[in-house]
Amino acid sequence: MNIYFDNASTTPLLDEVKEKMKSVIDEVYGNPSSIHRQGRQAKIIVENARKIVAECIGASTGEIFFTSGATEANNMALLCSIRDLGVKHVISATTEHHCITHTLDYIKSNSLAKVTLLPVDTSGHIDYNQLSAILEQSREKCLISLMHVNNEIGTMHDVNRIAEIAQENQALFNLDSSQSMGKYPIDVNDTNISFLCGSAHKFHGPKGVGFIYIKNENMIQTLMHGGDQERGLRSGTENIYGIAGMAEALQISVRDQEENRQHIKGLKDKFLQLVQSELEDIKINGSDTHGAYNIISLSFPKTEKSDLLMMNLDIAGICASAGSACSSGVENASHVLEAIGHDPERKAVRFSFSKFNTLEEIEQTIESLKKITPAKSIA
Amino acid sequence: MNIYFDNASTTPLLDEVKEKMKSVIDEVYGNPSSIHRQGRQAKIIVENARKIVAECIGASTGEIFFTSGATEANNMALLCSIRDLGVKHVISATTEHHCITHTLDYIKSNSLAKVTLLPVDTSGHIDYNQLSAILEQSREKCLISLMHVNNEIGTMHDVNRIAEIAQENQALFNLDSSQSMGKYPIDVNDTNISFLCGSAHKFHGPKGVGFIYIKNENMIQTLMHGGDQERGLRSGTENIYGIAGMAEALQISVRDQEENRQHIKGLKDKFLQLVQSELEDIKINGSDTHGAYNIISLSFPKTEKSDLLMMNLDIAGICASAGSACSSGVENASHVLEAIGHDPERKAVRFSFSKFNTLEEIEQTIESLKKITPAKSIA
Repeated sequence: MNIYFDNASTTPLLDEVKEKMKSVIDEVYGNPSSIHRQGRQAKIIVENARKIVAECIGASTGEIFFTSGATEANNMALLCSIRDLGVKHVISATTEHHCITHTLDYIKSNSLAKVTLLPVDTSGHIDYNQLSAILEQSREKCLISLMHVNNEIGTMHDVNRIAEIAQENQALFNLDSSQSMGKYPIDVNDTNISFLCGSAHKFHGPKGVGFIYIKNENMIQTLMHGGDQERGLRSGTENIYGIAGMAEALQISVRDQEENRQHIKGLKDKFLQLVQSELEDIKINGSDTHGAYNIISLSFPKTEKSDLLMMNLDIAGICASAGSACSSGVENASHVLEAIGHDPERKAVRFSFSKFNTLEEIEQTIESLKKITPAKSIA
Repeated sequence: MNIYFDNASTTPLLDEVKEKMKSVIDEVYGNPSSIHRQGRQAKIIVENARKIVAECIGASTGEIFFTSGATEANNMALLCSIRDLGVKHVISATTEHHCITHTLDYIKSNSLAKVTLLPVDTSGHIDYNQLSAILEQSREKCLISLMHVNNEIGTMHDVNRIAEIAQENQALFNLDSSQSMGKYPIDVNDTNISFLCGSAHKFHGPKGVGFIYIKNENMIQTLMHGGDQERGLRSGTENIYGIAGMAEALQISVRDQEENRQHIKGLKDKFLQLVQSELEDIKINGSDTHGAYNIISLSFPKTEKSDLLMMNLDIAGICASAGSACSSGVENASHVLEAIGHDPERKAVRFSFSKFNTLEEIEQTIESLKKITPAKSIA
């Protein structure tokens, strides 16, 4: 059995993405900065991709910059807006991804700006009134940095509301869209977003490539100094295979968004229904009302077997995750679970689905779980 | 006709590299940070690649970190050694790549450290006595950053001599090996190098991936904050296709180094011989005695046609370069040519060869050049 329920960690490539990447590997070898024919061929790959990505979020092509991933993109948004745009105060939340929280640790310990981390409630929600109040009291230029969908528990922040609060207070807003890009519609014309960061491998594109949208009016300078690639904003010869693959993946994800949503939501609903009817004492982490349709975090009771829950799932051929994947193979205590007050005696496991998953896999997983965690006895 | 003589800009992928990348695209989709089977499969790809790269330069695997290219690697070496290792003075040269000179501009304008750029002679050589004298006079911790092979004119710095000077003066030494990696032997056990930066696409590997060697005794902290990837030194989900392709490319380049050198040197010798016997008033930029075997920079006389030299070469199907490729398609005045006192009235063109080029292509190029620039009349 091989069931991959770890799509919030990374997703399999779409067949179309594989083909696109292979065609670039086979056919294109010029440097996009070279003016000769081989260079122009590579340049077209990069600029076509930029056009596609821009269209997918309603941006102009001049506002899209390719990076090595969302980590680099988020580092750019935070560090460069402080350095270049006079941001003196960054407001974020305790449950953000490490590429935000660790960058904020660095900002704080080097006194680059004031940092405020909003607490969350037991569902992972911030208090929007508190956000407003902090901004109203702040006399300095502020940047709000929040994720659309939490990667560990799926709780969604209200992007439109945050964007409005930002606008009302002349604050910048960095949206970490790593988990939502391609899954939820986003249009930078409708929502006041200053920076938006995306990562290809979360929407069936390749690993090691991402992008940042930078609104024209708050253009920053480069984090990485060198050649004039990306109009001087991101130096280094472009990852042409990755960029082409990312654009293909995003275009298809946006095209099939509604169809995928329905399919994946069906899987999640079925999973939750079976968890509740078949398993004993399972709690659901995250938000009942504002949870992403592809992520479920379950909290298992402490039993003799629960310490080996992840290992037993792996042995059963089910790939899921304790917390996020970015902690280098170590089962560290999750800062997200801690922030929502998760009982450390219980065991949290994240199941995250994609269009490639099936109802059969859901049923098989429940059967496996019944052998690992207490099942409900038949009345 | 399609003759690619722009291998200092970027190189075509080896067939073995294409196959390696495609196999990762087809077979591996886990996140190397995930502890389940899919994750472990991806982790093995990354760690095998690290072992290969380490072996190619005599490093230990714990000293190799994957990056998005040499630009990022060089930025890390410069910015992080100042931030983390107490470097107060960086000594480099006027002819370094923009990823060094532009980072140094940034360091200077933000008063992060003192910067000294060594001038070069008309062949592109620095004065090693001057380098020694500056280090002897400096009372602060110094970092020398120099490239092995100049990307525009092929002039080689004497790495062993620089390493000795660094050691005598307790200075750190960052070697930008972008143009030499895979073409010249390098062993960090024999040469006192603190940092070494490489870029896959210069040695028939993929674009958008590179590495930095960081000697254990001068370990820095991360430039990009986030997850614990690369043992916390470089956050962001790994570009597994690129990393696998790079290791394959480096291993083969090192294996075939001597054979490639002989073939390419034969092409360069033939090209120079024909240039001198067939074309009028051509000067050679760079070093007669210490020039890389794969790069020739020619200086063409000003004629009616010389302004359109690059375009005419392109029309003839010959890909070469005016200066380096990293200036975003614009034929800017080259800082390297300026540094060696190149007559701005004349037109410089760089021809750079790889193992895929042939003697026939050399002859065809000379025939094309005879139509674009004054040919010698037959006596």
